[in-house]
Amino acid sequence: MASGKSDWGIKVRVWVERAGVKVLGPGRVELLEHIDRQRSISAAARQMGMSYRRAWELVQAMNEAAGVELVEAKPGGSGGGGAAVTAHGQEAIRLYHSLVASFAKTSQDVALPAEPLAAPPDTT
Amino acid sequence: MASGKSDWGIKVRVWVERAGVKVLGPGRVELLEHIDRQRSISAAARQMGMSYRRAWELVQAMNEAAGVELVEAKPGGSGGGGAAVTAHGQEAIRLYHSLVASFAKTSQDVALPAEPLAAPPDTT
Repeated sequence: MASGKSDWGIKVRVWVERAGVKVLGPGRVELLEHIDRQRSISAAARQMGMSYRRAWELVQAMNEAAGVELVEAKPGGSGGGGAAVTAHGQEAIRLYHSLVASFAKTSQDVALPAEPLAAPPDTT
Repeated sequence: MASGKSDWGIKVRVWVERAGVKVLGPGRVELLEHIDRQRSISAAARQMGMSYRRAWELVQAMNEAAGVELVEAKPGGSGGGGAAVTAHGQEAIRLYHSLVASFAKTSQDVALPAEPLAAPPDTT
C-alpha cells in the first residue's frame, strides 16, 4: 500500500478437475502436504484447524475424484493408524505448485497499470 | 468426458483488488454488464436472480473499492431511477475480460497430460 507503486493487484485461484469434479485446490493441496509431513490425517487436520472428519472427507473426495489413491490410510494399531501420501499424491502436489507458478507468472506478465480503470482520453 | 482425450481440466478464478480489497470478480463484472445493458440496477439484479439489495450493495462495494465510480445511479423519477456504467466501469469490464483471456491462454499452454497424476517410472 505504501509501495509508491500501484495499489492494484490480481488474485488467482486454481483448481484441477477430473470429469468435472474437483480434485485439487489450494486447501486440498495444503492438506496433502500436512499429511505428507505428519504421516497422519488427524495431525494434519489439527495443524490446519480442521476437524478430523472434514479432513477425512476431503481425502476421500480427492481419492475418488482423482481415480487413483492420493492418500493411503494405514490400518490403526495401538498408536492409531497412520496415513501416507502416495506417489500419485506426490505428483498431485508437484502438479499443483507448477500450475500456481504458471498463473503467478501470467499475473506478473499482465502487469496492471498504476491506474487500471482510468478512462481512455476523450478524443472527440 | 467422452472426448477421447483427457478428462482432466484446470479451472481458474480471477479477482482484481485495490489496497487488498476486492474490486472485480466474475459475478461483479457480470453485474456491471447487465447494468450496462439494462441501464437499471433492479433489472440487472432480476436477470441475475439476485435481490435488488444485494446488487446495490455490490455496486457500492465496487465503487468504494475502486476509488472511482464504476456505476452511477441516477435519481429516481416517475419511471424509477436508472443507472449507468461509467467510462471507468467500461474500462473495468474490458480489463477483467482481458485478464480472463490471459489466464485462459495460460491454462491452454500448460496443457495437462492425459494422466497428470501418473507416478514417474521407478528407475531404481
